[in-house]
Amino acid sequence: MEKYVKKTVKAARRNSYQLSRLNQKVKNDILCRMADALLEHKIYILEENEKDVSAAKKARIKKSFIDRLTLTEDRIFQMSDSLRAIAALPDPLGRTLKGWTLANGLSLKKVAVPLGVIMIIYEARPNVTSDCLGLCFKTSNVAVLRGGKEALSSNKAVFKVLSRAAAKAGLTYAPFFLVDRTEHELVDKLLKENEYIDLVIPRGGENLIRKVTAASSIPVIKHYKGVCHIYVDQYADQIKALPICINAKCQRPAVCNAVETILVHEKIADRFLPVLKTALAKEKVMIKGDDRSRKIVKGLKKAYASDWSREYGDLTVNLKVVSSVDEAVAHINLYGSHHTDSIITDNINRAGQFSREVDSACCFVNISTRFSDGFQFGLGAEIGISTDKLHARGPMGLEELTTYKYIVEGDGQIRI
Amino acid sequence: MEKYVKKTVKAARRNSYQLSRLNQKVKNDILCRMADALLEHKIYILEENEKDVSAAKKARIKKSFIDRLTLTEDRIFQMSDSLRAIAALPDPLGRTLKGWTLANGLSLKKVAVPLGVIMIIYEARPNVTSDCLGLCFKTSNVAVLRGGKEALSSNKAVFKVLSRAAAKAGLTYAPFFLVDRTEHELVDKLLKENEYIDLVIPRGGENLIRKVTAASSIPVIKHYKGVCHIYVDQYADQIKALPICINAKCQRPAVCNAVETILVHEKIADRFLPVLKTALAKEKVMIKGDDRSRKIVKGLKKAYASDWSREYGDLTVNLKVVSSVDEAVAHINLYGSHHTDSIITDNINRAGQFSREVDSACCFVNISTRFSDGFQFGLGAEIGISTDKLHARGPMGLEELTTYKYIVEGDGQIRI
Repeated sequence: MEKYVKKTVKAARRNSYQLSRLNQKVKNDILCRMADALLEHKIYILEENEKDVSAAKKARIKKSFIDRLTLTEDRIFQMSDSLRAIAALPDPLGRTLKGWTLANGLSLKKVAVPLGVIMIIYEARPNVTSDCLGLCFKTSNVAVLRGGKEALSSNKAVFKVLSRAAAKAGLTYAPFFLVDRTEHELVDKLLKENEYIDLVIPRGGENLIRKVTAASSIPVIKHYKGVCHIYVDQYADQIKALPICINAKCQRPAVCNAVETILVHEKIADRFLPVLKTALAKEKVMIKGDDRSRKIVKGLKKAYASDWSREYGDLTVNLKVVSSVDEAVAHINLYGSHHTDSIITDNINRAGQFSREVDSACCFVNISTRFSDGFQFGLGAEIGISTDKLHARGPMGLEELTTYKYIVEGDGQIRI
Repeated sequence: MEKYVKKTVKAARRNSYQLSRLNQKVKNDILCRMADALLEHKIYILEENEKDVSAAKKARIKKSFIDRLTLTEDRIFQMSDSLRAIAALPDPLGRTLKGWTLANGLSLKKVAVPLGVIMIIYEARPNVTSDCLGLCFKTSNVAVLRGGKEALSSNKAVFKVLSRAAAKAGLTYAPFFLVDRTEHELVDKLLKENEYIDLVIPRGGENLIRKVTAASSIPVIKHYKGVCHIYVDQYADQIKALPICINAKCQRPAVCNAVETILVHEKIADRFLPVLKTALAKEKVMIKGDDRSRKIVKGLKKAYASDWSREYGDLTVNLKVVSSVDEAVAHINLYGSHHTDSIITDNINRAGQFSREVDSACCFVNISTRFSDGFQFGLGAEIGISTDKLHARGPMGLEELTTYKYIVEGDGQIRI
C-alpha cells in the first residue's frame, strides 16, 4: 500500500508539471472529446453503475443515498454538457493579477498559475467524478480522486472513459488519477503526502469532512455545514420578506444554503410572525421558536440551545425575536456556520452594518440564501463552497483552483 | 492552563469583531501613538531587555542568538519608525476585489475583510513583537503573540508599552495579546483552537516551523527554508551574471533568499566557471561542485546528493553544469524549496520557459535572488514569506493578512 501511495502521488506531481505546459485551446478540445466519450460509452457506464446500485439495494442502503448513486441517460447527458460548459469558460490561468515597476527598474508581475495536485474526496455521486476531473483539467491541476466505495464500479467506468478520451487525443501521460483501491488506511496515508499534494477538497457530510480534516497534513478547503440565517429587520418590506423566507427554507431544504433560523426584529414581530407561521405551516414546515416568538405565535415547539447551531437539512426552522441588528449579528456570529446570511431591510444603514459585521462568506441583502452557489453567482462552475477564510471563501469556481507566482524581471540588478 | 487558553482565544475572537469596526484613520492615529510610546519608554524597554540578554549570556547561548535578542536605542528607533511606516501604508481593507451584476439584478461584490485572529510564533527578536502587532492592528486582525522564552522580559515590556498606548488612545478592549506563560504544552493547546484562531504564522528556524505545522489544526502559512538557485544560461550576459551570483551568495548569506546552488549551462561553463570560482574564492566562499564542474575547475569539494537540498545559511555554494533549461528546471523543482530562483539570460524564450516552469513563489530574470522580500517588492511591509501555495505565496504584505467576503444585494429575488 505504501508503495502504491508513493507511486501515485509522485506520478501526480510529475504529470502536473507536464499538464501545466498544455495550452488552453488544446485542453478545451480534449474536454470536448471527453464530453463526447461519455455519450458514446453511456451504455457501458450505465451497466457499471447498475452493479453499484443493485449492490446498494441489496445492502438496504437508504433511498436518498441510492438516488444520488444512480446514473440515468439523462444524468450522463448532464455530465457531458457540464464538461462542454467547462471548456467554454474563460481561462483562469496566466492572468496578471497585479503588475508594477519599481524605481530600480524591476518589473513585477503576480501571475495566476495552477495549484498542482488536488485531491478530492467525495461520497456516492458518480457525476462528481467527471465534474471534478473537468474542473481540475481545465486549470491544469492533476486531480487525485477518491470516491465512496459504494460507487466504485461507476467511478471506474467514468474514469476509464475519460482517461481513454484524453489518451486518444494525444496525451501521453495521465492527467488525472482515481484511487481505486478501497483499503481504509489508504486515504489517511494519502492525506500525509503534503509534498506531493497541494490541496484537499472533501465533499460530503460533516462526518466525512471532519475525518479528512483531522487526518490531513495537507491544506483542506471545506465547509462543515450550512447554518444559514435570515434576519427580517424592523425596516423590512414584509411583502418581499415572506417569499424570501419560504424560498430559503422550502425550495430545497436538504442543501447547505437553505435557511435554518429566521430572526425577526421585535418592532415587526407581532405583525410578521403570524403571517410567516401560516405560510410556513402551509408548506408543512416544522417550526421551533424562542420564548418571545412563542408568546406571539401559539403552538410553536420550543427551540433549545442546541437547535440554534443545527443544520436540519429538512423542513424544520427556528424562529427568534431580536431587539436590534446588534443582537441579530451577535446571534449569527455565535451560532452560525459562517456560510450565508441574509438581511431583509429597506434601510441602507442596517444593510451596511449587517454586511460588514456578519462574519460569513456570503452576506446577502434582500435575497434568498439559496443564491449562495457558484452557478448562481455566475462563476460558471463550482468545485465546492468554503467557510474557511484562507485562500478561498464562499462558492469556489475556476479561479479558486489557481495560485499565483511572482515573475520579476530586471537587467542585472543586485541588492545594495 | 486549559482555562487560560480558552479565555485568551475567546477574548481574541470577541475583540476581533470590535477591532473590525475601527476605521482606518483611528487605527493610523493609534499606530503613531504606539510609535511615540516606544521612544518615550525606551529606557524601560532597554532595562527589561538587559535582563534577557544577561540571562542568555549566563546560559552561554551562542552569539548570533544574543545579537538578535539585543535591543539598542537604535533598534528601538527602527521599531518606532516601522510602526509609523505601517500607519502610512494604504488600507488593504474594504477594497472591492471584484464586482458584477447578474441578469436577475443581483449585484455581487467581493470585498477584502480582516482574517480575524492571527497567532504568530517566533523566536528571539523582540522587534518582531512590535512589527507584528503593528501589521495585524493595521489590518484589524487581533494578534496573539508567542515569542521565545529567552526574550520574555523584552517582549512583555514592548507589549505593555504598546497596549497602554492603545488604551490611552481610547481603546476599551485589548487589540492584541501576548502569551506570557511559558509552559511548553500551552502552544500545542493554542494550536488546536481552530474555531477561535484563523491563521498561524511561525517565524524562525525550520525546526520550529515543522513543530508548529505538525501540531496545528489551524491553517499555517510558512516557509521551511530557502534553497534558492541561479541558473546561468547559455545566452547569459556574463558581465551581469558574475555580480549577480556574488551578490546572491555573499551580501547576506544567513538569510533565506541567499543562493545555495548555481547551475551553469554547459556551453558557457568552460569560460564562466573559472571566473566565478575566482570571484567566489575572493569572498571566501566554500565551493562544492558536481563531477562536470570539478573537471572544469580544479580543487572543488564534491557536492553530495544531500547537498543539493541544503540551506547552508553561510558562505558555501554548490556548482553544477547542466545541458539545458529543461535540466535546470527539473533540478530546481526537485531539490529546491519553491522559494526564489533566478535565470540569467538574454534570450526571451529561455526566460519565459524558466518563469513558467519553475514551480517557485518567485521566478526572477536577470536579478539577484536577494530581491525576494516584501520591502524590496515595494509592498511596504512584510509579515513573512510563504512557500505554500494556498492563500499567499512569496513575500506577504498587508493584503495577505486579509480575506474576502461576498456581499450580494438584491430587491426581493428568490431562487426558481
